[in-house]
Amino acid sequence: MPERIPSDSVGIVAPQRHHFTEPLALVSGGTLPEYELVYETYGRLNASRTNAILVCHALSGNHHVAGYHSPEDRKPGWWENLIGPGKTIDSDRFFVVCCNNLGGCHGSTGPASSNPQTDRPFGPDFPIVSVPDWVASQARLADILEIDRWAAVIGGSLGGMQVLQWAIDYPQRLAHAVIIAAAPKLTAQNIAFNEVARQAIITDPEFHDGRYYDHATEPRRGLRLARMLGHITYLSDDIMREKFGRDLREGKVNFDYGVEFEVESYLRYQADTFVGGFDANTYLLMTKALDYFDPAALTGGDLAAAFKPVTADSLVISFTSDWRFAPARSREIVKALHDNDLNVSYAEIKAHHGHDAFLMKIPQYLDVFGAYMERIVDGVTT
Amino acid sequence: MPERIPSDSVGIVAPQRHHFTEPLALVSGGTLPEYELVYETYGRLNASRTNAILVCHALSGNHHVAGYHSPEDRKPGWWENLIGPGKTIDSDRFFVVCCNNLGGCHGSTGPASSNPQTDRPFGPDFPIVSVPDWVASQARLADILEIDRWAAVIGGSLGGMQVLQWAIDYPQRLAHAVIIAAAPKLTAQNIAFNEVARQAIITDPEFHDGRYYDHATEPRRGLRLARMLGHITYLSDDIMREKFGRDLREGKVNFDYGVEFEVESYLRYQADTFVGGFDANTYLLMTKALDYFDPAALTGGDLAAAFKPVTADSLVISFTSDWRFAPARSREIVKALHDNDLNVSYAEIKAHHGHDAFLMKIPQYLDVFGAYMERIVDGVTT
Repeated sequence: MPERIPSDSVGIVAPQRHHFTEPLALVSGGTLPEYELVYETYGRLNASRTNAILVCHALSGNHHVAGYHSPEDRKPGWWENLIGPGKTIDSDRFFVVCCNNLGGCHGSTGPASSNPQTDRPFGPDFPIVSVPDWVASQARLADILEIDRWAAVIGGSLGGMQVLQWAIDYPQRLAHAVIIAAAPKLTAQNIAFNEVARQAIITDPEFHDGRYYDHATEPRRGLRLARMLGHITYLSDDIMREKFGRDLREGKVNFDYGVEFEVESYLRYQADTFVGGFDANTYLLMTKALDYFDPAALTGGDLAAAFKPVTADSLVISFTSDWRFAPARSREIVKALHDNDLNVSYAEIKAHHGHDAFLMKIPQYLDVFGAYMERIVDGVTT
Repeated sequence: MPERIPSDSVGIVAPQRHHFTEPLALVSGGTLPEYELVYETYGRLNASRTNAILVCHALSGNHHVAGYHSPEDRKPGWWENLIGPGKTIDSDRFFVVCCNNLGGCHGSTGPASSNPQTDRPFGPDFPIVSVPDWVASQARLADILEIDRWAAVIGGSLGGMQVLQWAIDYPQRLAHAVIIAAAPKLTAQNIAFNEVARQAIITDPEFHDGRYYDHATEPRRGLRLARMLGHITYLSDDIMREKFGRDLREGKVNFDYGVEFEVESYLRYQADTFVGGFDANTYLLMTKALDYFDPAALTGGDLAAAFKPVTADSLVISFTSDWRFAPARSREIVKALHDNDLNVSYAEIKAHHGHDAFLMKIPQYLDVFGAYMERIVDGVTT
């Protein structure tokens, strides 16, 4: 391993892929006749196949959760803070799996993939996929990997929603559920933010009804705005104050529309680096999956009833300054799990980072999460 | 008065205008050689000229605060809930004045006005105006109206910031200051939202560097997004839940990008009606005036020191669910006024409407505000 890669990293990793030929019937009514999932694994599956962990990614995440793709790789996977030898999710003990979700833009079949029926990118013809579809496709990946039962399924934000769906749809296939910074459904305000992001993309003249691939362009402006807006909701007012305050980029006000305040610079930079590496149609799909997620819709709004099939032990974690999915939303989950007499641990972590806290090295967070993981041996809590 | 106009309305009103030929030096360093202000007045100025009230408008407001422009007018002025005979701001007792701010798009000189030097719209050549400039121009309007001293200067949101600036810059010219749902300066998060709105407008291909008038177009898409986003920040999460919840427009999910949730319909409607009646360059200017407002910047961040010149009695009002300018921001104002041994009344109104509460008929709000106004007779508190 090159010297510059830290010793507590899983090191150099390579994505794998599997082509699924059995059609997947989707909640939206459509069917994917065939599809590919790209995934990564870290650590080793034990002989009894009881130490596997599935990580579910959020809106802009992907299968590259930890490690580096090459010695030159400048940035590790998105949850490097938590996954690696001796870390919270210990790759010396667990076999960690994460796939890029269907509809994604990092290798799994999605809107930018070639539609076998037309030999052109799917674009808007890619069916709308939702959380239960992702979970079903992940279950098929588990079949391929010959993992009958995950020691834990883990995710933050939209990833946490997938964990809940796993616990409902495949109770026999996971021993533990770790649901971080999630919510049992979006609020009207959450949907409203998603809608502005979608409208930014859809009304971009370069969107071409989602067929921008055919025009050799992409709705960069729209995606850029969507990402800027997203970032505001990922950060707390407090961390923004701490990071940027009202600091001026050049120490003075210029009375023009260039970058004046540091926070403007940050948002523009974040958005500019995002655009180019992310597909706008995938962004649309992901926001729709968020909007639609509402397991209690099938039980007349009764979340406890929706959780009736659940058997997994669970850990629910929220962050005090998260205003996207506030602690109260996690408490709804905890209560509904408790109502089913399930083992639930809940931690409300004092953190001023906002929603993004789930990605951060926050000692209390890593302590609580790590202690929970330590007790999981051979797929059971010891 | 036509029967359909309520008896507690000021009735049919007509805007007036004044052309100012004395150049106005602006904080940004520029100068407006001449300009026009459009304004409305309601009620009668008394013989001693001591019952005049100035209302300052917010981002998307204008001079049409109360009454109707014609019997056919479908909507009254924006603060009809509070201004009229016998209302909170009683037009039987007070002479109420409001002008469209400089840089506005409802009749006062702004970016869409003809630049006398080119005979074409100013566009981006219109100088950036800020809160102290507005206050200076309003003071000149007071001169024209021969009002030496306002019985009260009143405003909500950005209007409240103008009230603070009045109290600092012209202490001898106002007896009372009513500052509603305001803040002594924006937070990084406030600025971030403004920046996304600006970027939406500026990156719209129809923006043409602000010279869209010359291209017979306007950045409608960008302005529409800016307004949608604005609306999210004007409403509380609570009122959104109450108004829309997760209600579906057609009672079912359609798995497409049309309107599905009621909140999407609301945002699109609000934005579509806004666009066409508002100039994008004005929107940009107004957000910049918000960003720049920070009277304590001149006193090393010490707000109490910034308020040193203030002599007015004041009423500060905030709303519990306002997350744009939260009650804590109003309390900063109250504290800094108190630190100067000024008479300050403060009311934190329990309301679930969010920032927009300042426009609403909320009984406790009208009671507190009305009681304060009742005690103002001949420009002094009785």
